[in-house]
Amino acid sequence: MQNNQFRPVTLSQSPRFVGIKTFMRLPQSRTFEGADFAIVGVPFDSGASFRTGQRHAPEAIRSMSVLLRDYNPALDISIFDYCGGIDYGDVAVVPGYFEETYARIEQDMTPLLEAGLVPFVLGGDHSITLGELRAIAKHHGPVALVHIDAHNDTTMDFLGQPYNHGTPFRRAIEENLLNVAHSIQVGMHGSSSSHAEYEDAFSLGFQVITMNSIREQGISAIIQQIQDRVGAIKTFVSFDIDVIDPAFAPGTGTLEVGGLTSWEALALVRGLRGLQIVGGDVVEVLPACDPSYITASLAGNIVYELISLHALMKRDA
Amino acid sequence: MQNNQFRPVTLSQSPRFVGIKTFMRLPQSRTFEGADFAIVGVPFDSGASFRTGQRHAPEAIRSMSVLLRDYNPALDISIFDYCGGIDYGDVAVVPGYFEETYARIEQDMTPLLEAGLVPFVLGGDHSITLGELRAIAKHHGPVALVHIDAHNDTTMDFLGQPYNHGTPFRRAIEENLLNVAHSIQVGMHGSSSSHAEYEDAFSLGFQVITMNSIREQGISAIIQQIQDRVGAIKTFVSFDIDVIDPAFAPGTGTLEVGGLTSWEALALVRGLRGLQIVGGDVVEVLPACDPSYITASLAGNIVYELISLHALMKRDA
Amino acid sequence: MQNNQFRPVTLSQSPRFVGIKTFMRLPQSRTFEGADFAIVGVPFDSGASFRTGQRHAPEAIRSMSVLLRDYNPALDISIFDYCGGIDYGDVAVVPGYFEETYARIEQDMTPLLEAGLVPFVLGGDHSITLGELRAIAKHHGPVALVHIDAHNDTTMDFLGQPYNHGTPFRRAIEENLLNVAHSIQVGMHGSSSSHAEYEDAFSLGFQVITMNSIREQGISAIIQQIQDRVGAIKTFVSFDIDVIDPAFAPGTGTLEVGGLTSWEALALVRGLRGLQIVGGDVVEVLPACDPSYITASLAGNIVYELISLHALMKRDA
Amino acid sequence: MQNNQFRPVTLSQSPRFVGIKTFMRLPQSRTFEGADFAIVGVPFDSGASFRTGQRHAPEAIRSMSVLLRDYNPALDISIFDYCGGIDYGDVAVVPGYFEETYARIEQDMTPLLEAGLVPFVLGGDHSITLGELRAIAKHHGPVALVHIDAHNDTTMDFLGQPYNHGTPFRRAIEENLLNVAHSIQVGMHGSSSSHAEYEDAFSLGFQVITMNSIREQGISAIIQQIQDRVGAIKTFVSFDIDVIDPAFAPGTGTLEVGGLTSWEALALVRGLRGLQIVGGDVVEVLPACDPSYITASLAGNIVYELISLHALMKRDA
Amino acid sequence: MQNNQFRPVTLSQSPRFVGIKTFMRLPQSRTFEGADFAIVGVPFDSGASFRTGQRHAPEAIRSMSVLLRDYNPALDISIFDYCGGIDYGDVAVVPGYFEETYARIEQDMTPLLEAGLVPFVLGGDHSITLGELRAIAKHHGPVALVHIDAHNDTTMDFLGQPYNHGTPFRRAIEENLLNVAHSIQVGMHGSSSSHAEYEDAFSLGFQVITMNSIREQGISAIIQQIQDRVGAIKTFVSFDIDVIDPAFAPGTGTLEVGGLTSWEALALVRGLRGLQIVGGDVVEVLPACDPSYITASLAGNIVYELISLHALMKRDA
Amino acid sequence: MQNNQFRPVTLSQSPRFVGIKTFMRLPQSRTFEGADFAIVGVPFDSGASFRTGQRHAPEAIRSMSVLLRDYNPALDISIFDYCGGIDYGDVAVVPGYFEETYARIEQDMTPLLEAGLVPFVLGGDHSITLGELRAIAKHHGPVALVHIDAHNDTTMDFLGQPYNHGTPFRRAIEENLLNVAHSIQVGMHGSSSSHAEYEDAFSLGFQVITMNSIREQGISAIIQQIQDRVGAIKTFVSFDIDVIDPAFAPGTGTLEVGGLTSWEALALVRGLRGLQIVGGDVVEVLPACDPSYITASLAGNIVYELISLHALMKRDA
Repeated sequence: MQNNQFRPVTLSQSPRFVGIKTFMRLPQSRTFEGADFAIVGVPFDSGASFRTGQRHAPEAIRSMSVLLRDYNPALDISIFDYCGGIDYGDVAVVPGYFEETYARIEQDMTPLLEAGLVPFVLGGDHSITLGELRAIAKHHGPVALVHIDAHNDTTMDFLGQPYNHGTPFRRAIEENLLNVAHSIQVGMHGSSSSHAEYEDAFSLGFQVITMNSIREQGISAIIQQIQDRVGAIKTFVSFDIDVIDPAFAPGTGTLEVGGLTSWEALALVRGLRGLQIVGGDVVEVLPACDPSYITASLAGNIVYELISLHALMKRDA
Repeated sequence: MQNNQFRPVTLSQSPRFVGIKTFMRLPQSRTFEGADFAIVGVPFDSGASFRTGQRHAPEAIRSMSVLLRDYNPALDISIFDYCGGIDYGDVAVVPGYFEETYARIEQDMTPLLEAGLVPFVLGGDHSITLGELRAIAKHHGPVALVHIDAHNDTTMDFLGQPYNHGTPFRRAIEENLLNVAHSIQVGMHGSSSSHAEYEDAFSLGFQVITMNSIREQGISAIIQQIQDRVGAIKTFVSFDIDVIDPAFAPGTGTLEVGGLTSWEALALVRGLRGLQIVGGDVVEVLPACDPSYITASLAGNIVYELISLHALMKRDA
Repeated sequence: MQNNQFRPVTLSQSPRFVGIKTFMRLPQSRTFEGADFAIVGVPFDSGASFRTGQRHAPEAIRSMSVLLRDYNPALDISIFDYCGGIDYGDVAVVPGYFEETYARIEQDMTPLLEAGLVPFVLGGDHSITLGELRAIAKHHGPVALVHIDAHNDTTMDFLGQPYNHGTPFRRAIEENLLNVAHSIQVGMHGSSSSHAEYEDAFSLGFQVITMNSIREQGISAIIQQIQDRVGAIKTFVSFDIDVIDPAFAPGTGTLEVGGLTSWEALALVRGLRGLQIVGGDVVEVLPACDPSYITASLAGNIVYELISLHALMKRDA
Repeated sequence: MQNNQFRPVTLSQSPRFVGIKTFMRLPQSRTFEGADFAIVGVPFDSGASFRTGQRHAPEAIRSMSVLLRDYNPALDISIFDYCGGIDYGDVAVVPGYFEETYARIEQDMTPLLEAGLVPFVLGGDHSITLGELRAIAKHHGPVALVHIDAHNDTTMDFLGQPYNHGTPFRRAIEENLLNVAHSIQVGMHGSSSSHAEYEDAFSLGFQVITMNSIREQGISAIIQQIQDRVGAIKTFVSFDIDVIDPAFAPGTGTLEVGGLTSWEALALVRGLRGLQIVGGDVVEVLPACDPSYITASLAGNIVYELISLHALMKRDA
Repeated sequence: MQNNQFRPVTLSQSPRFVGIKTFMRLPQSRTFEGADFAIVGVPFDSGASFRTGQRHAPEAIRSMSVLLRDYNPALDISIFDYCGGIDYGDVAVVPGYFEETYARIEQDMTPLLEAGLVPFVLGGDHSITLGELRAIAKHHGPVALVHIDAHNDTTMDFLGQPYNHGTPFRRAIEENLLNVAHSIQVGMHGSSSSHAEYEDAFSLGFQVITMNSIREQGISAIIQQIQDRVGAIKTFVSFDIDVIDPAFAPGTGTLEVGGLTSWEALALVRGLRGLQIVGGDVVEVLPACDPSYITASLAGNIVYELISLHALMKRDA
Repeated sequence: MQNNQFRPVTLSQSPRFVGIKTFMRLPQSRTFEGADFAIVGVPFDSGASFRTGQRHAPEAIRSMSVLLRDYNPALDISIFDYCGGIDYGDVAVVPGYFEETYARIEQDMTPLLEAGLVPFVLGGDHSITLGELRAIAKHHGPVALVHIDAHNDTTMDFLGQPYNHGTPFRRAIEENLLNVAHSIQVGMHGSSSSHAEYEDAFSLGFQVITMNSIREQGISAIIQQIQDRVGAIKTFVSFDIDVIDPAFAPGTGTLEVGGLTSWEALALVRGLRGLQIVGGDVVEVLPACDPSYITASLAGNIVYELISLHALMKRDA
């Protein structure tokens, strides 16, 4: 059992709306020896190609995450009996500057990785994942990617420039950060610029499971395919909230109708149980389009399931 | 057939946006001899543990309820051919004072019950149900409870105090207001403070059907279980809107992702057909987080289905 | 392949948020020789019986439609390889005056029809469809109607007056604009003023498929029924966004809970493949109740699927 | 002193958010013998030329008006010691039909006028004032008009049609409803279609005081000019909320920046003390653009000052 | 000059939207030896009599306060050259229970006061000030009150109960927490329940300056009156945001039109320069009605001016 | 008098909400020979240091600008009797890339300048002004700057980088784009990072008029100072909407309370009459924080006054 240092404030201590909001009311700390995971905010949105303002997502997700509590009935685990975590706060990003921001992401994530913590990142737009993967790959070598998203994000460039939220996985492959043979993309739907672009992700080596396939085969079958593809490889999970239907996740920038329901999204993440997850992120939450904060709430729940998987891994180790 | 005294204003009289809004455009009245049911607002929210403002729910639900009309195709019943109702208005609650508010709820509901009316209450947060059950049990004796909710609301206390929206059914059992052996809770999902707390409702004697069970068995099977559990006992139906997924019901205080769809919620309520329903409430609607009023609209539809069940009971009596 | 004149601006030219918003970033033009279809806004809302402001829907739909791109994976078609279109702009409606507005709709649509273009109209409340059908029938003769909606819109009158958004199809039949024997209404749900009113649409000759039937039989079976009913007759598709559940389409005036999901709505429209569609509209979007613009986005996607069907028809001709 | 029949519910009876909302919590009644004034809603908005939805204004104004209380310190009057009132509810308008709506306004207002009540109308867009003036003039003969507005509303026609919210006072003069020689327009600002249109109101005989004049001369001087112009003639006060700056009144349809502050607006209305006011209205409140309800609140306060003036007149009679 | 321990994060360290939000980006700490002032959140709203949700105000004020920076040009002071502060976080209030909440306020404020810190409290509704004054008076003895508000908050009771946001200063006088002879209330406007209630504050001994007086005499004259009244007595400043006009502060519960402008509010607080301020609060901010966060921003600026006054006092000591 | 080619659509042609929205309903065109001025959107927001999303401002300003009409009573000018204009559309900015965006701004503005048009730019965040000034200075040489803003925007760098919305005028001076001796900054208020930073603008040579000075001296005196400072030099007017108080302009990113009123802002711009204005911009409008679109409306009015000044210059030439 964990000591109290890395546990959330509980309801017997104060109502959940009390206090400066950290993720799940975990301790905010940049001292993390002994912790198992860290929540890291990356409030960067210069890579957004349509609606922007994802920089405010870490604040919004934390704000709603105080509803999350220790025991997860769906996975039957009391998280903090098996692991402890911190809220690291945010990386000091540089709006409008990609390379500088990526450098700062790496700079902050590296000590966490070196101390053995699993980072769970709150984006930010999807361009930040490239910075995260640079840090991850430097420490772990190329990793398998489980990429859950409406879009492949493997575009060659954006108006002639290398970085935006549609290009991170193209860049990640070029930089040898991914083990593509074990990587998989799940949930793609919506229109594409061209048939050629639509084929891009396939030709780069990803296994791609479209929303149409999910509808035809069901979540359980898809989970099996992910498990088969990834296997025992160290894995990074990147979850773009726009894979979820706008009804459940209106607060995002490039919304695509016809996406996952909240229940399906939770089931999908829970289905990653057993994978060797060394990090993850939830990106593209846009509070300015989330008047009731249901998107922020759902994003926090996705992170919560990832943490629960981590606790299970600890328990079953 | 009912006389005109207890029927709604119709579309041939005026457009539905015309007039001071009562539920379904029923007559507002505190004279109710001859009526069969009463809509009662209880605008109290001092029991909310996260987002608050549920006091404005009766107004919001009434505002949208003017879209509801006499004939319910799903149950094939013209409601006001078989029963009549009034909108009683609101109980004069005392914000910040539970016992005083409970006393006023009892004081207003008792004459309605004595006159043979079935009360359908528009909350307010869930703490009000204790006041309602006191009135109900005083008149009818302990009743079966059909409790549809994301949460069990059987917590022992809240920061050492007896009343808030997480404790009403614990209190109700202590006060002998419920026939627990015939009571059932449906729809629970989301995280808990601890495994022990999660077990509370079971140990108190409730049958508990989780959302996970609903997903596995389907709504029809669940309806059968409810019918089997409750039987012919006088029954109170308490519907917490947060059992519904935030996509369909964003306007609530302690939202839990992965809930019922609107269709499932309607089907579930329609499935209570035949039960001896002596009262009901719909609670936890929060207009401040309901920018398009879809939650208020859905809550009104839940009440509408309860009224329809009442009309069926009258017709088939 | 089409020339560039009638193609959208592409992402390689500018980010999608750049530029004065036309539908899909198509050229705005009132010169249309050589084009195959036209987007036409009809910003009229004097027929709305509850929440109003549908006049702003064309602007909102265009604003979000810039996310739509050439290649439609669901139907495997690169639209602009097979057809070209324009955004015609809006009809100069006269708020508060039905006949004058209908005259202007006809006046603007007639040259488009005469030039062989298929018009896709962005409403506006549903009263506008009568004006559209007058233009369509004058050119094509009475057409089959595929009417997807929560309501039948066949009411006899509204407070003694002939025109509002609940009467257009009653009027259209009286004016002999429809081939009723091949017409079908899909998706009806919610309460009615009376059992008699509920029976109206049947007695007028429409085939009516309720939401309940859709839930029982599934989308595929319904599609087959539509195809069987309509056959090879020239067809107009009228899509009222309130057939979709408020979770997915909160931005509408007379919302009815328990509607279609976005996925089902898209599947339904795609299922119209092969019909001889000579025009269509998407009506009742209400931006004032659509804070995240998910309704406008979904409406644009419905139009996009209709355009895709048109491209398929061109390709397969 | 008035009897209790026509007094508001007080704070010692229930919190102000309790109960079905009437104006100031006055009794809702269509029996009005013995009352001195009546609040009448006219939820009609088919005359709006830009943003619409003013039909929901009576509901919004009533909702916020519960904050208003008996004693008005600014005018040092306890209103209900000197007069009593009712909330009549709404006129059953016919959306999309001007003449039918005007007929219904007349039909409902006439009995009130005949019983000696002073009507205070909650609009609705400004086109409704023509209907009100028809009723007023039929009973009282042509009246002086104090018209406080950003616009003159004396346009000849709207797209060739006689009625919309820019034409009521042109029509009123044509129909001989006004004593123009004693009428005055106050607060005009913003752009006009042409210099000619800008001159219209002058040539019709109105005294026109622009916002520029108000800024140069101050509110007190303007009040004197109004008093001088109107004198002892029976007077109707028409207050268009768009005369107030959008900062103070964002919830309106055709907003004009650079308007009155709330303090100035209140002072202006209080300055009408002593005039023989036989009726008034507050129009053009648009709840869909009033997210914090500050416009509805301000509109209710304008009506409150008009009622206070009525009480003063009664006291000083 | 202060050490770095109690200074905000600066813009050269990270963009202001980066990081978990404390007031002005001050260090969050419950260790405060050596600091001069503390920001304390009291997220309690059970005393609100109309719109509620003030519990979320500390979070909202902190969120916007990151725009505030060290140098205050209006008072020509670099705050953190002369004093240092912490963000203490929130008091663990008990929603729905006044006495328990007051006890917790006292319990948390006492150590701060004993360590010589000046507390600046972020409310919460105005009922919390009673708890604060209990702590203040226990440490400092009865204090002068500078109460800036639209309302006097000296009501005898609320529906027979002692505590709500309209009674704190009545209770404070009864409990001998105030030096009434040196206390002053500023900014009162809006309607009252009765003339008698309106006279209450006068008869309790307060000097009362109405908004009408402010408009007649100007802010400078009022400042002089405050300075004269208070003199060199230890003073508590209680600032209710509803004294400011809803245009500038829409996010509040019991709004009163015709209030202060933002400029006037800032000038008024700056005019308290030289007073012996031993604590203060800003209450009644309601984020749910503050869609652009301008109220939260203004509230933070009021606190900022209070801190600036504290720095001036330190500099000039 | 101008020909019809460069005039807005009028109200006699269609209601203002009809049609794809260009500024004032001017013709959208990239052919501009014969026109006098051009509206140019620059939807770039990567330079925003707090709330972002200014990329959507050109769309929002255009949407509300349709309320603006030909005759400006305040300046007594019928604009289009003396000049004609186009809406050029938007520059194809590159989000996240400053230099590339600046190049595109220059590339689009240069032909307009060469054809003798005066460009009025709709931002975007304030970083775009550097790109505009590069184009202006290349064509006209260094110009006088009239900079109306809450902030000086002369910071040396942002986190070590040259470009963001706080640095454009520092860069402009370094690049010799301004005639500083004739340049003036007006409206500064709010806190600064340090006294040194506060002094920056002075030491760079600008005349700086703070909000405090405006309050002390009045708008007329300030206008005279601007006229004296600028004289007959070619002038660029850069108007940052955050100079206006958040009550009047909530939709902006780095709001500062205590700003100008709308009336003062209009008066200030009208006071620039007679200056040789060769271009201007209105920046920092943020639609995501502008729920009623009052900020967009006010921004459009500022541009309207600039156009009116241009017409006056033409008339009086």
